[in-house]
Amino acid sequence: MDYREVTTTAEYLGRFETGEDWRQQIESFAGEVDADAAWFMAMGAVQDAELWFYDQDDKEYYPVEFDEPLEVASCTGNISWLDGDRFAHTHAVLSREDGSTVAGHLNAGTTFAGELYLRVFDTELNREFDDVTELDLWL
Amino acid sequence: MDYREVTTTAEYLGRFETGEDWRQQIESFAGEVDADAAWFMAMGAVQDAELWFYDQDDKEYYPVEFDEPLEVASCTGNISWLDGDRFAHTHAVLSREDGSTVAGHLNAGTTFAGELYLRVFDTELNREFDDVTELDLWL
Amino acid sequence: MDYREVTTTAEYLGRFETGEDWRQQIESFAGEVDADAAWFMAMGAVQDAELWFYDQDDKEYYPVEFDEPLEVASCTGNISWLDGDRFAHTHAVLSREDGSTVAGHLNAGTTFAGELYLRVFDTELNREFDDVTELDLWL
Repeated sequence: MDYREVTTTAEYLGRFETGEDWRQQIESFAGEVDADAAWFMAMGAVQDAELWFYDQDDKEYYPVEFDEPLEVASCTGNISWLDGDRFAHTHAVLSREDGSTVAGHLNAGTTFAGELYLRVFDTELNREFDDVTELDLWL
Repeated sequence: MDYREVTTTAEYLGRFETGEDWRQQIESFAGEVDADAAWFMAMGAVQDAELWFYDQDDKEYYPVEFDEPLEVASCTGNISWLDGDRFAHTHAVLSREDGSTVAGHLNAGTTFAGELYLRVFDTELNREFDDVTELDLWL
Repeated sequence: MDYREVTTTAEYLGRFETGEDWRQQIESFAGEVDADAAWFMAMGAVQDAELWFYDQDDKEYYPVEFDEPLEVASCTGNISWLDGDRFAHTHAVLSREDGSTVAGHLNAGTTFAGELYLRVFDTELNREFDDVTELDLWL
């Protein structure tokens, strides 16, 4: 495993705004606190969601949309730089009224309510194209 | 996003007691170490579970009960004050023998075994009624 | 709850190697940085996975195999010593192209891509046989 030792420079608790996009809020917040590298966890609920599945053979992301209220049962991610912008790489597990779940790479979702914990590190993560997976990876 | 910078005052690893309620154990532990604000992760297994789904239209929580052994594949949450008591806001993803999952807001569950990581912050989180979502939110 | 206060001695960000086993990479990395106790989170994708379900009545683990590409929507775990080796107790939530999920105790999985955050603590966790659950537990 390729790795880097990091030191946390700041920790934050945040509350998401109702009606705004889940991932964009994390990215805006990361910009506000000048995070060039961070790890986060979050929980809450969304009014809808767009998950992306990366096809490991086609090397393409395919979206799946869920136009329904969903709990954010788990949300994990990290902040890095991608093509000149801060990018919140965000994976989430979402659930319905009967407990049934959908999960994956969360591209977008309209926030109903949400709580965030984010740690900023004293380093900079930059995503670059990886020939093997054809993904943009850091380190 | 509304946010607050926090500093961690203590970190703990814990082992859940078999047969006792999952969420109540986290709340009792938070009381024992005087946590007025904390973030936690946990994993393990429960003998049963009660998940709550918040209906975003009705503005009501509806319970779903699962009377079966389940792995706790993911558990994320935070400690705050709610109506004079410490409250462990707990989201979990649970799974069955065939890998199938249910997830959501974990109200209760009888612990089979479990492992906890909790960070206490130098602040106090208090939940107050939010007019938009009709949820009790902090910050 | 039985617990121990811990202090973090080092934090790491890591990038998994494509084609190698997910859990073994975490264990090798833990060895490389001399972690006797750690907590981690990870996200990414695997090419296949073997989940184990612990039967709470039989007191046996039963495996379920998934020979298909899966997103690692959530991955939580910790490092301890078990029978003389470092063991990464790893729970994961995995998802398919349509968002559907499987989850549980991740024994093995061939990495497609992955990102890790790991904190090392100034203590040593040792798993020992627990008579009640017949699991190897720490603390």
